[in-house]
Amino acid sequence: MDCGVALPGVQVAYQTYGALNAARSNAILICHALTGDQHVANVNPVTGKEGWWEIMVGPGLPIDTDRFFVVCANVLGGCLGTTGPASTNPETGRPYGLDLPVVTIRDMVNAQARLADALGIESWFNVIGGSMGGMQVLQWAASYPERVFSAIPIATAARHSSQNIAFGEVGRQAVMADPAWAGGRYLDAGLVPEKGLSVARMAAHITYLSDAALHQKFGRRYQDRAAPTFSFDADFQIESYLRHQGSTFVRRFDANSYLYLTRAMDYFDLAADHGGSLARAFQGVKTRFCVISFTSDWLFPTAESRAVVHALNASGAPVSFCEIETDKGHDAFLLDVPDLFSTTRGFLDSAARARGLP
Amino acid sequence: MDCGVALPGVQVAYQTYGALNAARSNAILICHALTGDQHVANVNPVTGKEGWWEIMVGPGLPIDTDRFFVVCANVLGGCLGTTGPASTNPETGRPYGLDLPVVTIRDMVNAQARLADALGIESWFNVIGGSMGGMQVLQWAASYPERVFSAIPIATAARHSSQNIAFGEVGRQAVMADPAWAGGRYLDAGLVPEKGLSVARMAAHITYLSDAALHQKFGRRYQDRAAPTFSFDADFQIESYLRHQGSTFVRRFDANSYLYLTRAMDYFDLAADHGGSLARAFQGVKTRFCVISFTSDWLFPTAESRAVVHALNASGAPVSFCEIETDKGHDAFLLDVPDLFSTTRGFLDSAARARGLP
Repeated sequence: MDCGVALPGVQVAYQTYGALNAARSNAILICHALTGDQHVANVNPVTGKEGWWEIMVGPGLPIDTDRFFVVCANVLGGCLGTTGPASTNPETGRPYGLDLPVVTIRDMVNAQARLADALGIESWFNVIGGSMGGMQVLQWAASYPERVFSAIPIATAARHSSQNIAFGEVGRQAVMADPAWAGGRYLDAGLVPEKGLSVARMAAHITYLSDAALHQKFGRRYQDRAAPTFSFDADFQIESYLRHQGSTFVRRFDANSYLYLTRAMDYFDLAADHGGSLARAFQGVKTRFCVISFTSDWLFPTAESRAVVHALNASGAPVSFCEIETDKGHDAFLLDVPDLFSTTRGFLDSAARARGLP
Repeated sequence: MDCGVALPGVQVAYQTYGALNAARSNAILICHALTGDQHVANVNPVTGKEGWWEIMVGPGLPIDTDRFFVVCANVLGGCLGTTGPASTNPETGRPYGLDLPVVTIRDMVNAQARLADALGIESWFNVIGGSMGGMQVLQWAASYPERVFSAIPIATAARHSSQNIAFGEVGRQAVMADPAWAGGRYLDAGLVPEKGLSVARMAAHITYLSDAALHQKFGRRYQDRAAPTFSFDADFQIESYLRHQGSTFVRRFDANSYLYLTRAMDYFDLAADHGGSLARAFQGVKTRFCVISFTSDWLFPTAESRAVVHALNASGAPVSFCEIETDKGHDAFLLDVPDLFSTTRGFLDSAARARGLP
């Protein structure tokens, strides 16, 4: 791992959709975001809800499972089957908790590379993902350029900004402030730091939406009442919505995983890993890129994507850039945004022709 | 109060600077923001630090205490001497806690109006304030137009946006998630909800700065180390800074006051109080306005100030509007922003001439 230690017996949980062709040339790796998981296009066994990208992945959809073999793995440090802080530490027989070494985006990608080896996939036709998933896409191209034929980093950045580190730190402090967190040993103690994790999720959730989207969706409308109660109840719809986001999240996500994954994003800085030059990170890369950003995304604003595009241009890599007009904010990559679908479909079609796929 | 109950025995703590002239026509009321207080231009007795607007208020400064009689009062619901949740409830002999009725911006202004009566000030030469202070400025002009000769609302809005309510709710949930909050009865229990209030402050503090300011001030620089520690320590300067902001804040601010004042901002909606028309809130108002916003303020963006200006135009009130170019974010109203000083000085000069002040 990047921190210098070896992590023995790592397990990677993954889902696949569609069929790998004989040439093993039609495989797409989807990299999930902070609170995502491997259940892209099937019912999630934890929540009972449909997969998080059903709108994008399936027969006839932009990531067409009739044409492509689609793989998605839970990230290292996650909590849905891949080794993470809630996994059993073989040395102690107890959950790792904070004894799990701190994970980086590169560690996640290295784990995915072992999975690719195990699946016999020498080279991905495409690696795609949004937000933290987009960081993995960029890291894949930098670490294993010969194994990535094409790449679609969405709503992401080559390094976490100061503001984003700040939001990450607020979330972690909220979790760690909860006495039920118990120094990270809550599983041993039979506790769940629900309140802290809920506050972390609420704060983060605001950053996933845009001011305009919040205004349209909730405005200053009251929740199930005609007038304010002059109390600290959830008078406003936005308050009720956020509380719901917080309480449903704690039922499906491990608090320590939240610490590890936000930390991985904070540490991500592709240029710093290459002597301060982002172009050098992509030197000699032949991967075809389609970089996508959203106009109302203030967590990963277009300027971050533009920096990636400039670096790819400087390194001579083939790159298309598409800034999509939408008021849906950072979350747009998960939502019904027709321009996202048509861009993804068009780029994958063109890349498939270049790779001789039917 | 707006919630329909009477609050007996209200105390208002205030500071004054300069001298009231014989005509009682040179008084300026400064309205403080969420975490401000009445100690505008003197050493704060709680923190031992200088006043929060020393840069703006004093002899020869834009709010010139050689010319003007300056008053600033701690808001109703505050924690520096004015009646608030930490004050003693005369009915029980214990701190109010959540038994204090919920306070609105109008309640704050009404308390200030009683102070003006007590000071013999029939009409303020000027009412000025930023953020929550600006809300009070707008409320003053709407509630007591004949008592406000001129007004300078800075970095504010005529209603709290959905996004801002969301951030308010996150802060409140962080406080209330702390077991030491004890249902608001922490003072009786000899506790302080330090961790919760600290998280609330950290989250809020991010919204006071701009992405650009954070990038310039902290970037991704490490705190007292050359490389990441691969831990959850405050590796980054921004993390260390935020933790410091949190820990110093809890020493000077009451957690329940934080709940009450953020709630007051959430409830603020001047148009809703006037049949949905902001222009109607200012109907017949003769107060001269100078509305000020900052380009990089995303908490109270310029669009909010523009809505106020449009309403003032529609109501026929005299208004100047100044959007100041700065990367300092919402906090700009507290910082060394020369255009803010020159605008304030120029507007006050012109208003003083109109009022026949020397």
